[in-house]
Amino acid sequence: DLPFVLISGPCQIENRDHALMMADRLSGIAAKAGVPFIFKSSFDKANRTSVSGQRGVGIDAGLSILAEVKARFGCPVLTDVHDAGQVEAAAEAVDILQIPAFLCRQTDLLLAAGRTGAVVNVKKGQFLAPWDMAAVAQKVASTGNERILLTERGASFGYNALVSDMRSLPVMAQTGYPVVFDATHSVQQPGGLGSASGGQREFAPVLARSAVAAGVAAIFAEAHDDPDNAPSDGPVMLPLEWIQPLLGKLKAIDAAMKG
Amino acid sequence: DLPFVLISGPCQIENRDHALMMADRLSGIAAKAGVPFIFKSSFDKANRTSVSGQRGVGIDAGLSILAEVKARFGCPVLTDVHDAGQVEAAAEAVDILQIPAFLCRQTDLLLAAGRTGAVVNVKKGQFLAPWDMAAVAQKVASTGNERILLTERGASFGYNALVSDMRSLPVMAQTGYPVVFDATHSVQQPGGLGSASGGQREFAPVLARSAVAAGVAAIFAEAHDDPDNAPSDGPVMLPLEWIQPLLGKLKAIDAAMKG
Amino acid sequence: DLPFVLISGPCQIENRDHALMMADRLSGIAAKAGVPFIFKSSFDKANRTSVSGQRGVGIDAGLSILAEVKARFGCPVLTDVHDAGQVEAAAEAVDILQIPAFLCRQTDLLLAAGRTGAVVNVKKGQFLAPWDMAAVAQKVASTGNERILLTERGASFGYNALVSDMRSLPVMAQTGYPVVFDATHSVQQPGGLGSASGGQREFAPVLARSAVAAGVAAIFAEAHDDPDNAPSDGPVMLPLEWIQPLLGKLKAIDAAMKG
Amino acid sequence: DLPFVLISGPCQIENRDHALMMADRLSGIAAKAGVPFIFKSSFDKANRTSVSGQRGVGIDAGLSILAEVKARFGCPVLTDVHDAGQVEAAAEAVDILQIPAFLCRQTDLLLAAGRTGAVVNVKKGQFLAPWDMAAVAQKVASTGNERILLTERGASFGYNALVSDMRSLPVMAQTGYPVVFDATHSVQQPGGLGSASGGQREFAPVLARSAVAAGVAAIFAEAHDDPDNAPSDGPVMLPLEWIQPLLGKLKAIDAAMKG
Repeated sequence: DLPFVLISGPCQIENRDHALMMADRLSGIAAKAGVPFIFKSSFDKANRTSVSGQRGVGIDAGLSILAEVKARFGCPVLTDVHDAGQVEAAAEAVDILQIPAFLCRQTDLLLAAGRTGAVVNVKKGQFLAPWDMAAVAQKVASTGNERILLTERGASFGYNALVSDMRSLPVMAQTGYPVVFDATHSVQQPGGLGSASGGQREFAPVLARSAVAAGVAAIFAEAHDDPDNAPSDGPVMLPLEWIQPLLGKLKAIDAAMKG
Repeated sequence: DLPFVLISGPCQIENRDHALMMADRLSGIAAKAGVPFIFKSSFDKANRTSVSGQRGVGIDAGLSILAEVKARFGCPVLTDVHDAGQVEAAAEAVDILQIPAFLCRQTDLLLAAGRTGAVVNVKKGQFLAPWDMAAVAQKVASTGNERILLTERGASFGYNALVSDMRSLPVMAQTGYPVVFDATHSVQQPGGLGSASGGQREFAPVLARSAVAAGVAAIFAEAHDDPDNAPSDGPVMLPLEWIQPLLGKLKAIDAAMKG
Repeated sequence: DLPFVLISGPCQIENRDHALMMADRLSGIAAKAGVPFIFKSSFDKANRTSVSGQRGVGIDAGLSILAEVKARFGCPVLTDVHDAGQVEAAAEAVDILQIPAFLCRQTDLLLAAGRTGAVVNVKKGQFLAPWDMAAVAQKVASTGNERILLTERGASFGYNALVSDMRSLPVMAQTGYPVVFDATHSVQQPGGLGSASGGQREFAPVLARSAVAAGVAAIFAEAHDDPDNAPSDGPVMLPLEWIQPLLGKLKAIDAAMKG
Repeated sequence: DLPFVLISGPCQIENRDHALMMADRLSGIAAKAGVPFIFKSSFDKANRTSVSGQRGVGIDAGLSILAEVKARFGCPVLTDVHDAGQVEAAAEAVDILQIPAFLCRQTDLLLAAGRTGAVVNVKKGQFLAPWDMAAVAQKVASTGNERILLTERGASFGYNALVSDMRSLPVMAQTGYPVVFDATHSVQQPGGLGSASGGQREFAPVLARSAVAAGVAAIFAEAHDDPDNAPSDGPVMLPLEWIQPLLGKLKAIDAAMKG
């Protein structure tokens, strides 16, 4: 019963200075709270709602910034990959390759990610049952790489809506792999703004608390110093100043739960 | 920030001895845990899946047994009512009138229950959004009775399935009325056994923990000394021996959450 | 393979003149189209979203108006009942007793309705799977009354939304009872207006066509001469002038389907 | 109001002889029925439920067989592509590039497909609302290629289940692009067999009839001479002998609908 881990960072790498500033702030808050920290940020947003949504800094610049974060702050770094051609370069720069939810059934991507030997965090598709993730994990494990994380990020619940099923956490844990709860994407309202996804960040702390009480290895929660002006996922990202009180609450619940 | 309350008992009043035994056992466990206790049991199961499902002891015998439980064990007593003609007699015997989820929009029943002056616990229909419960509560409140509880017991999620949305708890709390999480009916698989509802009691403790971490006034969890042979709701009721460890966990999480 | 029947009328009996006018207009349109017609209207709206929603003319006035419609226009008449105490009087005045969707599992109401010997139309709850309706029909049939209709009116699909599953029609038909598709309540957005249900009447003709192509015994579609000012279900009721062209299309599809 | 088109073929290209035989049989049946025909088959199944599911003949062999089908039977040919690197070769061999549902938000794939100038058929993700497809189509159209088809293939409805919302067809048609209804994938039970998707092919004709009555440009329905022994999608593919009677019914409904 290890303590839970925080996976956080801005949705996308906006530029080098911003990524470093966010890593500095978040790693500091986590250290003060005594919570292990993994930095997350994306070099490319490959499935924006709209073709005019901002994509990101690209793979070369992005991986170089992530490597710098890792070197400077000493924290593991996570980023998402979108096709098999990206995994090798990404695995050289980061510790954890994340498979986006829409792509969680793409066999070639899962196999390629697995073969790098990096930790592979697979997000459960909004269209999948939690027990379906056993076959997904098996695709990665078939490469001999058992360093797998499985992440809950909400299930489709009618149109433009998600619901978080806390039963999903123990169900996925039956695979034996650590389970992560993504508290910010779980409060997305997909496509809810017409040309972008909406969200209800005010519910992210509630769901994070519920998930920790259900039992998880890590909480994933994107954060930003100015979420309302962020280029992506603004409606769900947590303002930086929410992180410290949230971690305090989660630590107490985690201790109560595992006590 | 009062501590949470336990509402528990066997799904239906099977007979006087069984009800008294269960009230004795449950009130004892709750007292030892320092958790306020409300006894719940039904005198009639008015909406069984099948016409051959066992209905119960009836209103006269049932209310008399509930009054005896109240007198003997000193705990408040809750039972559900199914039409306006039942509310007066029920309100004389019990403290809390419960409106079943399927009936939560029946105006006459809500008004009649409200007019008794008893506490009214309205279960949210599986077909309702949490914010829809404000108008439901308003029906009761229009009688001048503001002693209202609102209970989450799962939302329809495809066929023969429910999902528990923890956001529902803070949303309903915005009405100002205490919110209850029903951990056992939330793990029903409605109609899942063909001529009866199935269920997954193993997930009830998980959801109860999540709900307490989200924040609730009470946990509702039906219990039985031999659930697998109970005449109704067997697949979801908790074995008596689960209650004590569950309460311990919930108390710790509640303290962490409210600390 | 009989031709399909039209069940129509204003959601509620607003007053005698309006009910007679609507029955006159609708029976005329149906006769011209060669479609058998059943008049539907409610004497009480017992589960309005809000306590201030208009309830209706009441049972005595309502049944008397319905009996007059039946006598004057020679069409069968359908109305909904909400508790067992209403069924006898209702069965004397009308041909078909309708069980509202929220009440479709209330055993006493189903048994009482069945015992009158009238045709009983049970609306499938938004929270039920189509195969669950076999046990519901069996409750009515247990009284010896096999004159049963089963109506699809949408399934819960996330919050404040319904979806119409056309597979439901052949699944319910496996019971051997005629199946009705309710095209107007199926386009409700339950609770979608905050203090009332919204709706999208523009999709009712689409769903009616789909249902006839899937195969049904009857199409249920509420109609009104001024739906936007109707006291209930305005957003879903069809303007009277939509009925004739819709019937023409449905008849052609029905003939193609059964040809 | 053109007549509807049939898009059909075996889920995957099993080998040259089988593909040619199926194209021969299906094009013959369609010609006899007077229904325009497009042959569909996949060279790679890139997102099988299980890593041990059969993938297919691969892109080189597959495209060569599809080109032969096109040359020999004179029908347009459709196949699905899974990453941007495949689109150019595919567009040389086939007329229509299909974007799989899980990949319908992957911007690079949509842009690459659009740039080939081929017709692009985008399947609506099970996690998307029909109105969300306008932004998806806009990604393709941003390349200057407006030869776009949009396909409904079911929406997530709880776990391991889909539901077909017939409102989706007119909603997507508001984009101005032709709308296709995929009758066989819509009756999938995703992941329902544990290591493969289950399905209910018996409902495919019902949904196809409903879709034609709602209004569509094309019906997509995979077919096979021995579906129960097919390497993929066996539970949903239609036996070849179902096609002729189904087309007859659909033509009659289409004529009634457009008449």
